Amino acid sequence: MEVGFLGLGIMGKAMAMNLLKHGFKVTVWNRTLSKCDELVEHGASVCESPAEVIKKCKYTIAMLSDPCAALSVVFDKDGVLEQICEGKGYIDMSTVDAETSLKINEAITGKGGRFIEAPVSGSKKPAEDGQLIILAAGDKALFEESIPAFDVLGKKSFFLGQVGNGAKMKLIVNMIMGSMMNAFSEGLVLADKTGLSSDTLLDILDLGAMTNPMFKGKGPSMNKNSYPPAFPLKHQQKDMRLALALGDENAVSMPVAAAANEAFKKARSLGLGDLDFSAVIEAVKFSKE
Amino acid sequence: MEVGFLGLGIMGKAMAMNLLKHGFKVTVWNRTLSKCDELVEHGASVCESPAEVIKKCKYTIAMLSDPCAALSVVFDKDGVLEQICEGKGYIDMSTVDAETSLKINEAITGKGGRFIEAPVSGSKKPAEDGQLIILAAGDKALFEESIPAFDVLGKKSFFLGQVGNGAKMKLIVNMIMGSMMNAFSEGLVLADKTGLSSDTLLDILDLGAMTNPMFKGKGPSMNKNSYPPAFPLKHQQKDMRLALALGDENAVSMPVAAAANEAFKKARSLGLGDLDFSAVIEAVKFSKE
Amino acid sequence: MEVGFLGLGIMGKAMAMNLLKHGFKVTVWNRTLSKCDELVEHGASVCESPAEVIKKCKYTIAMLSDPCAALSVVFDKDGVLEQICEGKGYIDMSTVDAETSLKINEAITGKGGRFIEAPVSGSKKPAEDGQLIILAAGDKALFEESIPAFDVLGKKSFFLGQVGNGAKMKLIVNMIMGSMMNAFSEGLVLADKTGLSSDTLLDILDLGAMTNPMFKGKGPSMNKNSYPPAFPLKHQQKDMRLALALGDENAVSMPVAAAANEAFKKARSLGLGDLDFSAVIEAVKFSKE
Amino acid sequence: MEVGFLGLGIMGKAMAMNLLKHGFKVTVWNRTLSKCDELVEHGASVCESPAEVIKKCKYTIAMLSDPCAALSVVFDKDGVLEQICEGKGYIDMSTVDAETSLKINEAITGKGGRFIEAPVSGSKKPAEDGQLIILAAGDKALFEESIPAFDVLGKKSFFLGQVGNGAKMKLIVNMIMGSMMNAFSEGLVLADKTGLSSDTLLDILDLGAMTNPMFKGKGPSMNKNSYPPAFPLKHQQKDMRLALALGDENAVSMPVAAAANEAFKKARSLGLGDLDFSAVIEAVKFSKE
Repeated sequence: MEVGFLGLGIMGKAMAMNLLKHGFKVTVWNRTLSKCDELVEHGASVCESPAEVIKKCKYTIAMLSDPCAALSVVFDKDGVLEQICEGKGYIDMSTVDAETSLKINEAITGKGGRFIEAPVSGSKKPAEDGQLIILAAGDKALFEESIPAFDVLGKKSFFLGQVGNGAKMKLIVNMIMGSMMNAFSEGLVLADKTGLSSDTLLDILDLGAMTNPMFKGKGPSMNKNSYPPAFPLKHQQKDMRLALALGDENAVSMPVAAAANEAFKKARSLGLGDLDFSAVIEAVKFSKE
Repeated sequence: MEVGFLGLGIMGKAMAMNLLKHGFKVTVWNRTLSKCDELVEHGASVCESPAEVIKKCKYTIAMLSDPCAALSVVFDKDGVLEQICEGKGYIDMSTVDAETSLKINEAITGKGGRFIEAPVSGSKKPAEDGQLIILAAGDKALFEESIPAFDVLGKKSFFLGQVGNGAKMKLIVNMIMGSMMNAFSEGLVLADKTGLSSDTLLDILDLGAMTNPMFKGKGPSMNKNSYPPAFPLKHQQKDMRLALALGDENAVSMPVAAAANEAFKKARSLGLGDLDFSAVIEAVKFSKE
Repeated sequence: MEVGFLGLGIMGKAMAMNLLKHGFKVTVWNRTLSKCDELVEHGASVCESPAEVIKKCKYTIAMLSDPCAALSVVFDKDGVLEQICEGKGYIDMSTVDAETSLKINEAITGKGGRFIEAPVSGSKKPAEDGQLIILAAGDKALFEESIPAFDVLGKKSFFLGQVGNGAKMKLIVNMIMGSMMNAFSEGLVLADKTGLSSDTLLDILDLGAMTNPMFKGKGPSMNKNSYPPAFPLKHQQKDMRLALALGDENAVSMPVAAAANEAFKKARSLGLGDLDFSAVIEAVKFSKE
Repeated sequence: MEVGFLGLGIMGKAMAMNLLKHGFKVTVWNRTLSKCDELVEHGASVCESPAEVIKKCKYTIAMLSDPCAALSVVFDKDGVLEQICEGKGYIDMSTVDAETSLKINEAITGKGGRFIEAPVSGSKKPAEDGQLIILAAGDKALFEESIPAFDVLGKKSFFLGQVGNGAKMKLIVNMIMGSMMNAFSEGLVLADKTGLSSDTLLDILDLGAMTNPMFKGKGPSMNKNSYPPAFPLKHQQKDMRLALALGDENAVSMPVAAAANEAFKKARSLGLGDLDFSAVIEAVKFSKE
């Protein structure tokens, strides 16, 4: 199978590499072209613009850093839109909001192309290991044709219906994550302030019905006041905000998520936005006693 | 090793049975004596009062339903206090508040006896399987002498320092649990109201960093509006309240736990107090649209 | 002084009438022209389009129902923009978000015109009585030239600096109002459920440091479950949401407003969106006991 | 009319003085007897113990600093209980919890005496001016006989039914006050952080439907970061907690009060407990940007 691949950041590079390793013919493009070199060593072809990639390949995957980059690659000069046409499929795996996805979808399908959004759950390590979770939505047939690639990139892919649903599902997952992180933080701080060991609390949690990789992975460093940014707090807070906005549209009252969102905002105001989202514990801890 | 055992409710019976199976000599007592019969068939002896059990055994474990029962077994006529003395150890595994524990501790040690509180995390099934988590605090030497029994009853036992710490640690664990359940409920309802499948959300959560036995165990029935009471909502709410009171004493602000507590209170006002605590999702769901 | 007046809804009509009564020469326009008749009887002139009004008058006031109408009157065919030019002033008193105001400002000033936004605090009665509070922002000189009109329309006008500040100030005022209404509702319900009289609570509040026209005006009908819509709950909730978004932009954590917002959302989900915002008490009250 | 008066703190002294000025014969007692001197100059008699006051007077009013003092005056040696008997009335105007009131009531009525609790709303100034609001509950006949004294001490007295209701009503009033103060604080901070003037916000609020003596009295000093303690924050937080506990007993979910309570707790952890409760704005403000 031959695929185009746009965007070779941390995630994109790992993903394109996996495709190559599994025998896919991959044509890559990146804004900074030099980033393509390592892929070329492993057998990738290179094009000088998104338009060229689209022209060459029946299927093109994009993995871009944010909504702005996702839009630019499609709509700018030499962009996707110049070559997309009937028979071609565009698979945007970037994390963008539903609105951005809908805009891209409209443009692509307006030219006769097919589109799915396919944001992923998982960061660098799962990307390298082909263990992402893929939340796809849009053109059902294109989704099915993409399965060979998705099987290489992720451990599981879901088809969620119309464009926008992938983005929404990801927000909901992240909202639960943000509230859980606050619950965890409040518990760790309460243990500490009542003279109990927050390390022992980690051990106890780890043995019970709430044990989960996130508590296990982040707990020990939180107890050492260390928050190396795997998922920056400001992005987590943005996702909480967007999930709450989704609740607003649908008249779903979510007081716990709302309280968690305010805690993340307090953490931002304390200058913690660029640290890992587990740094929200600092907002809970903060006192002058 | 010979131990006394007071209280043969669902938990106590399973625990005493485990001790018998592992070769302990067990002397049991229960307010309704007929409940001792099954244990006797498996080799247990019976006494007619807590005082008699204490008189006979160097170590006595209690597993009673609530603080009231825990106090009554110690302080009432023919109670523990009448026979406790130097050289004897009393191990209360009931779930009680720190204040109750402290009162029992004072009385026991006032007579020269030794005391540990040792509340457990885990319900019927882990009790039967000897897989409880034991949160012990009080007399360190007694804790160490109790380890052979704890190894039979639980998968892990923790020594947490002075009396009261076991009760506090359990509240903190339950507080995290209650907030997590709310986070989970809000996510499931939001998925449903935005036209996504809440069953798919379960699948996605199960594959990611938040996967945990509680979501896995309770999610499917929550999606079917079924809440068979493993841990009654009213007890969960009581533990949230007590954990918040602990935060109050220590000036720890916990807005997410506070929001979760109010959601549980709303659920109580909707008549859901006797259902499983996962029924809090009904308070999130509730609408007239 | 001669002024144009666009928009003769409940508010606009009362305001234009006040201007006429105080000797202003007023030229009116309304989408449904027949609504101009009553004004004409009191001496107003009529134009057939916003553009004509602008052409005729040095100063034009607009009082439109929502951001959509406010934009349409400016940008559509025969709109304000076709005739606005140097020497002319446009005063938009509609309640719109800061973004809408900024868009209008840019267009008007791009043509050499001058602009202020001037949203008001107060509804029908204060509009009729010339007792509005005017929150103006934008061109300072235009504000000063508008004072004779503002003195007729309101009891006090504030100049708040750059365009957008009027809209923001109004959101903040409404946010405080929404949280206060929730505080009040929770108190009334708590009194009632603990067997105290919520009418007596009103009397007590009225005598103390918290006495205010809102509690006094709305309390008695809230105690009778009556919520005639003076300010619809769905609009109050929208303003809470926008105020929280303002807090988000500025990293201000506002947990009480966030909790109040979720209560208004719950009220919306209970079908109360079109009632007065005091109907949020129904969301507090709601129970099955 | 002749009355006894126990407790001559800031409040008690002002109240006893008012009674003297209005022609009451007053017999006073205070733990530090020298505090009685000023009252004696104005015509009061003095006794050396609460028991003596009760023996001498048909009606005795108490105004003590806290539940502990209120209990001690009744139950200690030479206390109220030694002389209370049929035909005598005891009127406790101290601010205590319902439980303390009930305990005192039981003891007094057990000896044949009559009892009302009558906590007040209002602090030093209203006490001096005879402008307190009196929240009485208990023996209806005694309440009616006390009206001449209440008319001197307060601008209005309410009879609220059984003992405990006075304490509960006061908690509810203070709960509303605490939430309102948070709403106000969030608004002031949001104004400031968005570049608006928080002084102008005060002016705007003062003109609208939310205008109230509390905002007017405390707003200007809050904008100057000044919090002279009229009602200490730690007491306000304690009342929020007790009001939430009252909600808990009655299954009333109060998410806004709960959020406000957590804000007060955060303020306590920032070392603000002894300042005025308006210092909660510091917890809202706190940031590192």
